[in-house]
Amino acid sequence: MKFCSECATPVEWTTPEGDHLPRHVCPNCETIFYSNPRIIAGCLPIWEDKVLMCRRNIEPRKNYWTLPAGFMENGETTEQGAMRETWEEAEAEVDIISLYTHTSIVHVNQLQLFFLAKMRTPNFSTTSESNEVALFSEDEIPWDEIAFPTVTNALRLFFKERRSGGPFNFHRISIDRHNEQNNASTTQHEIRI
Amino acid sequence: MKFCSECATPVEWTTPEGDHLPRHVCPNCETIFYSNPRIIAGCLPIWEDKVLMCRRNIEPRKNYWTLPAGFMENGETTEQGAMRETWEEAEAEVDIISLYTHTSIVHVNQLQLFFLAKMRTPNFSTTSESNEVALFSEDEIPWDEIAFPTVTNALRLFFKERRSGGPFNFHRISIDRHNEQNNASTTQHEIRI
Repeated sequence: MKFCSECATPVEWTTPEGDHLPRHVCPNCETIFYSNPRIIAGCLPIWEDKVLMCRRNIEPRKNYWTLPAGFMENGETTEQGAMRETWEEAEAEVDIISLYTHTSIVHVNQLQLFFLAKMRTPNFSTTSESNEVALFSEDEIPWDEIAFPTVTNALRLFFKERRSGGPFNFHRISIDRHNEQNNASTTQHEIRI
Repeated sequence: MKFCSECATPVEWTTPEGDHLPRHVCPNCETIFYSNPRIIAGCLPIWEDKVLMCRRNIEPRKNYWTLPAGFMENGETTEQGAMRETWEEAEAEVDIISLYTHTSIVHVNQLQLFFLAKMRTPNFSTTSESNEVALFSEDEIPWDEIAFPTVTNALRLFFKERRSGGPFNFHRISIDRHNEQNNASTTQHEIRI
């Protein structure tokens, strides 16, 4: 950020009075500009013994496989964001079962939320964002071609918990690649599918 | 937003190619400016049969009682944000037990997260943000002087679940004052304190 978005004056990087962190501040109109983590909302869409995945048609990680997810928008709930992204990336309609993973990805300032979701029908399609969409059983998952570690993690947790007969737990996870500190906390859920 | 924060050119409000929503876009350097929901992280701090609350020393809702909470910052986890806010507003040190409420407040573009947290000691203090800080048992809570409905809601859920002997559940809630649509979904947790 170089200029004030309200009055076009060059901004300063300074700690406002009463604050404890530096912010971009306009010396003319005194607007303070905050930068905060963003939310990625997505689904782990389930049909019978399979999970729906999308092969990315966009960078980053083009042509790698992912679960449908994207930035939560203003004016929606986390659940609505997850369902919207599942439609936009895979043209699949789902019903939310529960929140499954809550991952603070500290080095990129993101909170990533994956919901367990039931597909209403086995229908899906490629989209502008996904050049391939497919249902995979556990032994068909393309483990070596997954776009993001958080997706691998959610899938491993899901199949492990399903093999053990459930219940599906709630997983709070943090990843900080800068400090090489990863933590995971599992909370028992009484979720059965 | 009136001007591009990168090159000071007046921005346009238009839907970028491949997008589905209008954004502020710079016609000169082509930067797209996204606005997304922000995360409020906070704690419901517990000491024996009491809960720690803060009387706000700042607007909005100055002099009304709240649970310690505030905007999550870049470079921290949701848990760290909740613990930091509890220190900044009440000088109380806590350990996170579990995520308790996850509330999409649609009309203000916020996701509010309250964690159940155990106070390490019964120590706390007023701060620049709180002109009074106190431990309340259920029958002492100043119900008529609470700053925000989400705080009232988290406290009511907590005391109700404690009276019933637990466990403490996980509550996903959405509030949309514009559409008068409120939803709540409770997920059983095996949390016992």
